[in-house]
Amino acid sequence: MINTFFQAIENKANQSTVDLKAILKNMSLNSDGLIPVITQDANSKDVLMMAWMNKPAIQKTLDTQRMTYWSRSRQSYWVKGETSGNTQQLVSMSLDCDGDALLCLVKQIGGACHTGRNTCFYLAFDHKNERAIIQGNQQ
Amino acid sequence: MINTFFQAIENKANQSTVDLKAILKNMSLNSDGLIPVITQDANSKDVLMMAWMNKPAIQKTLDTQRMTYWSRSRQSYWVKGETSGNTQQLVSMSLDCDGDALLCLVKQIGGACHTGRNTCFYLAFDHKNERAIIQGNQQ
Repeated sequence: MINTFFQAIENKANQSTVDLKAILKNMSLNSDGLIPVITQDANSKDVLMMAWMNKPAIQKTLDTQRMTYWSRSRQSYWVKGETSGNTQQLVSMSLDCDGDALLCLVKQIGGACHTGRNTCFYLAFDHKNERAIIQGNQQ
Repeated sequence: MINTFFQAIENKANQSTVDLKAILKNMSLNSDGLIPVITQDANSKDVLMMAWMNKPAIQKTLDTQRMTYWSRSRQSYWVKGETSGNTQQLVSMSLDCDGDALLCLVKQIGGACHTGRNTCFYLAFDHKNERAIIQGNQQ
């Protein structure tokens, strides 16, 4: 799993730059050509959801500033909020140290979750009491 | 990809509870038996890293409150900070709406990234200028 491209740039100084095309060319995708994407609210810093993109979805997201995932269940592009109106405008996109995960900060309109809750991560584990507690109301 | 267990509980009210054993039994793992884990600093709310757990790693993390991942490259458990001292103490763990991603809030000691930076997500895309900008110093 060692990605030598990212290993070679990891000691670069703060604020130094790397060609974005080279980054996108060398990032690690899974066997389906996908990379996991963490989506975080740029204001609240709440983590909203995790989904997947392929390279064209990354490019579409960068070009349009609208979060565009790859739906594994539907096998198609998925412009977040196209149906619900709960869109996500891209604020920033970052890649991790070994080039196999993306973090996107977004301006979220409405709830991020299909259940109507703010975040998809609404099942909070209460290990001591052997239960999970539902967090948040459906809007 | 529809997980009927999680679909069946998605309309439960805020603060209602679900048996944790049933949650863990029904969560969706990938073909390697792994689930992606997003690790977020409980204080700063910065997203620190993304890694993977199998079911025993989840149980170890819940039991010990020390973040314990499954290293795909080494094919072994990986107690974060065991070598570096940069440990992560679990503060809370949540599962998402379709049961295929975990979010863990942690108390992070030292930098989360193996490069010595605070976060693994230090390659910030500057799409307009076709470059990525290194964010943060190595400690």
